[in-house]
Amino acid sequence: MFVIGVDLGGTQIRAAKIDQAGLIAAQAGALTGAGDGPAVVVEQIAGLITTVAGDTAPEQIVGVGVGAPGPVDPAAGVVLHAANLAGWRDVPLKQLLQQRTGWRVEVGNDANAAALGEWRFGSGRGCAHFSYVTFSTGIGAGVIVDGKLLLGHQGSAGEIGHSTIQADGPLCSCGNIGCWQTLASGTALAAFARVATAGNDDALIARIAGDEPIGGQHVARAAQDGDATAQQLMRQVGEYVGVGLVNVLHLYAPERIALGGGMMESYDLLEPHFRRIVAERAMASYRDTAIVRAELGGLGGVLGAAALALE
Amino acid sequence: MFVIGVDLGGTQIRAAKIDQAGLIAAQAGALTGAGDGPAVVVEQIAGLITTVAGDTAPEQIVGVGVGAPGPVDPAAGVVLHAANLAGWRDVPLKQLLQQRTGWRVEVGNDANAAALGEWRFGSGRGCAHFSYVTFSTGIGAGVIVDGKLLLGHQGSAGEIGHSTIQADGPLCSCGNIGCWQTLASGTALAAFARVATAGNDDALIARIAGDEPIGGQHVARAAQDGDATAQQLMRQVGEYVGVGLVNVLHLYAPERIALGGGMMESYDLLEPHFRRIVAERAMASYRDTAIVRAELGGLGGVLGAAALALE
Repeated sequence: MFVIGVDLGGTQIRAAKIDQAGLIAAQAGALTGAGDGPAVVVEQIAGLITTVAGDTAPEQIVGVGVGAPGPVDPAAGVVLHAANLAGWRDVPLKQLLQQRTGWRVEVGNDANAAALGEWRFGSGRGCAHFSYVTFSTGIGAGVIVDGKLLLGHQGSAGEIGHSTIQADGPLCSCGNIGCWQTLASGTALAAFARVATAGNDDALIARIAGDEPIGGQHVARAAQDGDATAQQLMRQVGEYVGVGLVNVLHLYAPERIALGGGMMESYDLLEPHFRRIVAERAMASYRDTAIVRAELGGLGGVLGAAALALE
Repeated sequence: MFVIGVDLGGTQIRAAKIDQAGLIAAQAGALTGAGDGPAVVVEQIAGLITTVAGDTAPEQIVGVGVGAPGPVDPAAGVVLHAANLAGWRDVPLKQLLQQRTGWRVEVGNDANAAALGEWRFGSGRGCAHFSYVTFSTGIGAGVIVDGKLLLGHQGSAGEIGHSTIQADGPLCSCGNIGCWQTLASGTALAAFARVATAGNDDALIARIAGDEPIGGQHVARAAQDGDATAQQLMRQVGEYVGVGLVNVLHLYAPERIALGGGMMESYDLLEPHFRRIVAERAMASYRDTAIVRAELGGLGGVLGAAALALE
């Protein structure tokens, strides 16, 4: 028995056929026709599904899961809005792909899918209560409660990247103020670094960035090279990561929290700072909760999408 | 068929026999022997249960629910700690009362119990996803997801009163920084008022308080009388209420939020301020969620405790 997972991103679509242990039996990918409208992208997805299905007998494939960016109504299988995909408003992706492929299709938000993937195949195995947080341009999360995704009304629970941790903090792209992701995402790290190095082209961070705009990865490189400014920036963001993790503990009471996303390539630089904040601030009974790095890395997207169809 | 609810507080114990529509058939109360240790209080509770049971046939009573202050392990029915009750550490209340009374007993945290009560009998009827927040000396909450209490590991999810909304804010009694309850509880309102009126015995708030320490109720009275300082304080706290409600929306995605607790006796003074913040800051798809006043008032404790036994 197999399941097919599709990770729909603004740049790439990746598909994989996965067995029930989470091993990848086939995979394929394509550059997303992000400007071409939903009909074209749905055809791309259907084509990739057919490719990875290969000559497996249709009844050996139990279903297809698709992780999509932005808000999704998981019960209806509708992508409500996808900021990086032109024309994606209220797209009934589940229905379109079921008609096109004949298999049962489940559609979920990509952060929720990644959480399910880590829970079923990675760092969350064996936990009844598990939270996954992904740090990249923003902060996304998926929360497992009693072995099920926490969805809430219209599937929109768990938006902890858009919960306020500083009521008089920076304006977020969502319209809220002082959201966790305005202070602890890769975008926040880059913004702090641009302020810290403004007018100083000799700063190591600026020299590493060269002609590119300063990004989180340049700060991390400079911090690894011993640059004091960069280390201070990693400390600042690592501490804000910790403030939000204390909230995850107090709000959802998971047995384990896994941290993923591009910014966690600098896990070792951030870890001492968020651990110190959690040790100082979390209530005693939550303080021993395991906080670990996500395990699935680049495969998390398709494995998580596949896990949606195994629910 | 009846169920018995017991609201165990630091000052009073209240018990009621309730029918399945939530109507109270009998009730009784006693002052809590808060300094006398668990054995004495357990006897008090058992006595009240016997009193309200009256001559109802034992098989007509489906169970007993107890709402207890502080952290509770609801699966084991153990009160882990109750700050206002001397000697209450790891008290196996469920087991003790089952042995003593013969009925099935369920024990829960009082805020969770109140949430269940509002959901079953009051402002949350008919919602699959519902959040209840109580504002008094602290801020407590109970969250219903898919018709069930959100408990998390060891029953400790939903501590939104102890989630940070101001990362560089005041130190909370729990050890965390800038918890919602340091900025939006009755205690916070009183603390802000003491600062605002320091050295000014002619301030209306101070004159209303007289010989008592200034409390939230004095600020509310002065605000109702048109005092500008008091109105500004209600605005400040009402806005912080709103900041936390936006987090409740983004984190748990309820269909409805109900606000209870002593501070909500000033609901009308706070409401314009929290509604303005929610309108400004919540993401569009959450903004229409109903925010209402809790309905059960003083009966919420025993009705909620009874609801624990109906789960």
